[in-house]
Amino acid sequence: MKIIATISDLKQHLKKEKVNGSTIGFVPTMGFLHEGHVSLMEASKKENDVSVISIFVNPLQFGPNEDFESYPRDLERDARIAENAGVDFLFAPLPEEMYPARPSISIHVKDRVDVLCGSKREGHFDGVAAVLTKLFNIVQPDRVYFGLKDAQQVAVVDGLINDFNIPVELRAMPTIREEDGLAKSSRNVRLSPDEREMAPVIYQSLKWAEEAAKNGVGDEAALISGIKERIENETSGEIDYIEIYSYPSLKKMDVLEGKFIIAAAVKFSDARLIDNIIISAGA
Amino acid sequence: MKIIATISDLKQHLKKEKVNGSTIGFVPTMGFLHEGHVSLMEASKKENDVSVISIFVNPLQFGPNEDFESYPRDLERDARIAENAGVDFLFAPLPEEMYPARPSISIHVKDRVDVLCGSKREGHFDGVAAVLTKLFNIVQPDRVYFGLKDAQQVAVVDGLINDFNIPVELRAMPTIREEDGLAKSSRNVRLSPDEREMAPVIYQSLKWAEEAAKNGVGDEAALISGIKERIENETSGEIDYIEIYSYPSLKKMDVLEGKFIIAAAVKFSDARLIDNIIISAGA
Repeated sequence: MKIIATISDLKQHLKKEKVNGSTIGFVPTMGFLHEGHVSLMEASKKENDVSVISIFVNPLQFGPNEDFESYPRDLERDARIAENAGVDFLFAPLPEEMYPARPSISIHVKDRVDVLCGSKREGHFDGVAAVLTKLFNIVQPDRVYFGLKDAQQVAVVDGLINDFNIPVELRAMPTIREEDGLAKSSRNVRLSPDEREMAPVIYQSLKWAEEAAKNGVGDEAALISGIKERIENETSGEIDYIEIYSYPSLKKMDVLEGKFIIAAAVKFSDARLIDNIIISAGA
Repeated sequence: MKIIATISDLKQHLKKEKVNGSTIGFVPTMGFLHEGHVSLMEASKKENDVSVISIFVNPLQFGPNEDFESYPRDLERDARIAENAGVDFLFAPLPEEMYPARPSISIHVKDRVDVLCGSKREGHFDGVAAVLTKLFNIVQPDRVYFGLKDAQQVAVVDGLINDFNIPVELRAMPTIREEDGLAKSSRNVRLSPDEREMAPVIYQSLKWAEEAAKNGVGDEAALISGIKERIENETSGEIDYIEIYSYPSLKKMDVLEGKFIIAAAVKFSDARLIDNIIISAGA
């Protein structure tokens, strides 16, 4: 695996691969890799001749009160994980390389952002869209890999690719879970032993709602209150939101039909967990 | 030459060319082609294996009070001109093909827009940047051709390409002129015979300023008043603006050094003419 810090170096390496007709898989990340990322890198490795991962903590997608400076970074560890997952090129540019000057042009994501976690992170997805536009142009991948754990990000990327005709296939990969169903997250270690035992209820309640929807419960309010009830009764967590939207357009639905997402955010004492389930109704 | 209306058709054709290693030259236009466009198509033909022209009157770049509906269109005539200029693919999509839904993401050009003609066309370059981002992703050209007659557009495209690392070479081609120096424009036919005779003074005054700058006149105000004086004394036109900026950053300059543009807009009875000259000082 080659570790590369400059855009021109990366382009030169990838040019050689493309001339040979190799397909390129790309996993954009902010580093501090965990099993979710590993599943994306493994999928990329399996489906493409060459795999590229980027590790870049993008200042543009952090709000003024967010943790850009303290966001965890460990390139050495990340490089070992990426190499083991079969990555060929690790692209880790400095901020000056990606933004040599203040950007003179910005991207504004208008739809799909004022819901779920996005409603509290104004401008976050504008920064995500800008850095991905740059990375897509630099890497020019055949396929790009994102995890459905952050289903809103996948939805926004889907919009970006469609609106601007970006020539890449979006591969949205399933959430990786512990054996008891809890979505894997670097935040799970911040759960107390008691909380860790209760936390799988989040996914169980989403699965219950999926079952109910498949059995004909088309009432959004009934599904949401059923999920709330279980989480409130069976965990010590505080519900941040339980929301249902069409997917990937993330619009309010009058009737639950087609593809939709049920998403939950639950606060424990020192960790806020998110999870979701995407359902194709009437199938 | 093939005339193509859909994105998928165009991509299929170009894919075949790229697999063969052909380079692609691209001339994005709004049609109603004139000699300026022809010079761009000829340059593309000369420098690339395959030449693509797009003809698309982009609704996104017209303001609410601008002439989107009445903008002149003549695809049959344009096709003849493009074919004669050696174009291989003419891409002429309908608006529904380019914008099947209301765009969910917009691009905002922050710099280089509040000067020259852009100061009166709010949002114009946002629409230009959005359609070009789409077209660049669809065509994936090696080189893209724009005329320096619209030097502000070239400057904005330069910013777009740099900010988003778009993998294309920007070829900014010189303004095509009549024998007496008047910049060619489809608006020149709307000049009266008297006005047509006076109009070359615009370019002559810009050339005078270039000469003065090269001979050490570093005073912006002196150059501007010299140009104004000639145009006011020797034509019946009304000056809209004479402005000097760094190029392509289009910033106010304290001292005239490096590369800068002197641009003029002059209103005659039924035609507003623009022209400019780009100067590398201290060379």
